[in-house]
Amino acid sequence: MADASEKSAHVSISSPSPPSPSPSTSSSMAVTSTEIKDDGERVINLDHGDPTMYERFWQQMGDITTIVISGWQSMSYFSDVKNLCWFLEPEFAKQIIRLHKIVGNAVTDNYYIVVGTGSTQLFQAALYALSPPNASEPMSVVSAAPFYSSYPSVTDFLKSGLYKWAGDANNFNKDGPYIELVTSPNNPDGSIRQPVVNRSGENLVHDFAYYWPQYTPISSPADHDLMLFTVSKATGHAGMRLGWALVKDKEVAKKMTSFIELNTIGVSKDSQQRAAKILQVISDSYEPVGNPKQSGSFFHFSHSMMEERWKALRSAAKQSGLFSLPEFPSSFCNFLGQAFGSQPAFAWLKCEGGIEDCGNFLKKHKILARNGKHFGASPEYVRVSMLDRDESFNLFTKRLSSLHLSQSKDHEEESP
Amino acid sequence: MADASEKSAHVSISSPSPPSPSPSTSSSMAVTSTEIKDDGERVINLDHGDPTMYERFWQQMGDITTIVISGWQSMSYFSDVKNLCWFLEPEFAKQIIRLHKIVGNAVTDNYYIVVGTGSTQLFQAALYALSPPNASEPMSVVSAAPFYSSYPSVTDFLKSGLYKWAGDANNFNKDGPYIELVTSPNNPDGSIRQPVVNRSGENLVHDFAYYWPQYTPISSPADHDLMLFTVSKATGHAGMRLGWALVKDKEVAKKMTSFIELNTIGVSKDSQQRAAKILQVISDSYEPVGNPKQSGSFFHFSHSMMEERWKALRSAAKQSGLFSLPEFPSSFCNFLGQAFGSQPAFAWLKCEGGIEDCGNFLKKHKILARNGKHFGASPEYVRVSMLDRDESFNLFTKRLSSLHLSQSKDHEEESP
Repeated sequence: MADASEKSAHVSISSPSPPSPSPSTSSSMAVTSTEIKDDGERVINLDHGDPTMYERFWQQMGDITTIVISGWQSMSYFSDVKNLCWFLEPEFAKQIIRLHKIVGNAVTDNYYIVVGTGSTQLFQAALYALSPPNASEPMSVVSAAPFYSSYPSVTDFLKSGLYKWAGDANNFNKDGPYIELVTSPNNPDGSIRQPVVNRSGENLVHDFAYYWPQYTPISSPADHDLMLFTVSKATGHAGMRLGWALVKDKEVAKKMTSFIELNTIGVSKDSQQRAAKILQVISDSYEPVGNPKQSGSFFHFSHSMMEERWKALRSAAKQSGLFSLPEFPSSFCNFLGQAFGSQPAFAWLKCEGGIEDCGNFLKKHKILARNGKHFGASPEYVRVSMLDRDESFNLFTKRLSSLHLSQSKDHEEESP
Repeated sequence: MADASEKSAHVSISSPSPPSPSPSTSSSMAVTSTEIKDDGERVINLDHGDPTMYERFWQQMGDITTIVISGWQSMSYFSDVKNLCWFLEPEFAKQIIRLHKIVGNAVTDNYYIVVGTGSTQLFQAALYALSPPNASEPMSVVSAAPFYSSYPSVTDFLKSGLYKWAGDANNFNKDGPYIELVTSPNNPDGSIRQPVVNRSGENLVHDFAYYWPQYTPISSPADHDLMLFTVSKATGHAGMRLGWALVKDKEVAKKMTSFIELNTIGVSKDSQQRAAKILQVISDSYEPVGNPKQSGSFFHFSHSMMEERWKALRSAAKQSGLFSLPEFPSSFCNFLGQAFGSQPAFAWLKCEGGIEDCGNFLKKHKILARNGKHFGASPEYVRVSMLDRDESFNLFTKRLSSLHLSQSKDHEEESP
């Protein structure tokens, strides 16, 4: 599921205005942190997963992804009255299927597509669809810790009688049916996941927001019962508020569609049309296979960006000596044709050297990251977005590398 | 609140493709039903309130409302980090305020604006915001019958512990706090409404989806605590899925914003930008006041369309002799500078001549309309959309006018 921005202070060092166009189409992402002057005063907000890193790529693509919508277009509620999901724009559906086939990250044959206002809405639609309407008590919803910090609040905010957050899947031992959320790669820690409860009555929701080749090797096309994807983390277009579900069972797809009818009577057509164009341009750059444009193509470009950023972060952590990061085994990516270790959209950063509250420590140094306790984990951890604009990310690694044990001790003395 | 399409058979006589452009800018809406050949076999679906009637106006406006969005625009989750409603596009907010000031249908000074994925989402956000989080039982939600058919299902579909549908406000006699929905002009019957319960503990939500000069005289700027509007019925752009709330209390506006964060992490930026352009073009045509473009301006055009359609419908009902329609007193519209009676977006049609189930009777004649019982009313009534494309509306009045008592009796004999 896409990352929310809730509970974060909405402070950012970078301007919300779009970047100025650049004629360069280079995919080079040389990190220039050594050139950055940091007075230590600017607030670096990496609490939320705002994917503004991707602006530069789309800016370099120029007009090819521009869309034009006339005032008289897309006025009806309906997109395709013959489709089970009647508010799904046919061109968007077509481009979803095409992109999955090219990337090889999900099976689409014999699946229903349900579009949502972000995968957050689809997550709620899935809970609604998988919970029986007349059960004596709410269905338990679990996920293995550390889990996405929004799962508990999104599940429980309406105090639904249909479903209820039941915490860490590793500790779940209640009998009867349940829903397990399997996020892979996982938010916040980037791990590759399987279900952990594995009992009768299981209903699985696979959150594949990050199962794209810029983040992790694509080992095989996923073919689970209910899989969620989001434009926000696939292409970086969070402002579109668009996601899609691939659903095997017709009745589940129907109930998810009903949820979205009742909740928002469909999904913005404008954003669906825009997303269709974005996906189309990505797919065009990979067809026919072996076409020379590939080095400047979206997944190659963004994979390189993430690779450089993770290198810079690991180097900064090493230089500081105060932080550790998860290690990811290398495996082969069928799409990119090479082996690499995951380079997640978030860094699950651990403070060493006796710092007990990593979020608080970083905050003293004006770095905002989400505290581990929101993910059902220890406050020694924080989650840091790897997807902010270059300026913000480079300043972050620069500042992180300059933090040393003495500062940690100062900190501990200041606020025992 | 916008009208939903749920539970309707998705059959329409009109093509979902956009209309072909026309150079005409005439606002004439002469109903040409006499020229229409009706074999009685085509299904006319007026069950839902799809506002495709408006396509023709926007088509005639040509390129002036066209928007162009580049691939690198609107990527962030955030629209305005300094605004309480951080996902509200500033230009959309500006145009909302400007349009309300020009039309004079709502006060905006000292109100917070919360944007939603249609007013349906905002309705749920309002229930969430007005219900205390830790009450011993759910807050009662009521509305005077006949009420919008989606209110009960949208209120109850998640079996929330926060709020619960409690039916017709006229019969509500439970002590304690409650939420009353006041829809004015009302969906389905077009009546002008005031709250009916009027007790301590009252929380009012005013649904002003239809408080626009094409539907009803604008008598004064509304200034209630919580008012909902929707693009779908104001300008006809249902596919944008956009609405806005004007909210007096800061804490209520904050909680509504929280709801939308948790539910969908904001609202499509693409649609907000497009809506801003549409509202801007409407306002431009009315400024400065008295400018000669007014006769071709949106509210003048759509007011004329509705006037013609209601004339045609009343004439058809009279010709048939089987139907009656509500009468609306004439009153002065400050915006249009003339007096007229309401000409609602829906006709609340009553079958006379002993027909007990009006929806069923019309269905036999391949006219789909929503049965009165969905609105907490008698099945002698149906709600008919007045906002479909010309072809569909004209065919409807043509066919309606041809239904006579003999057909009603045939019907009664066929299915007693």
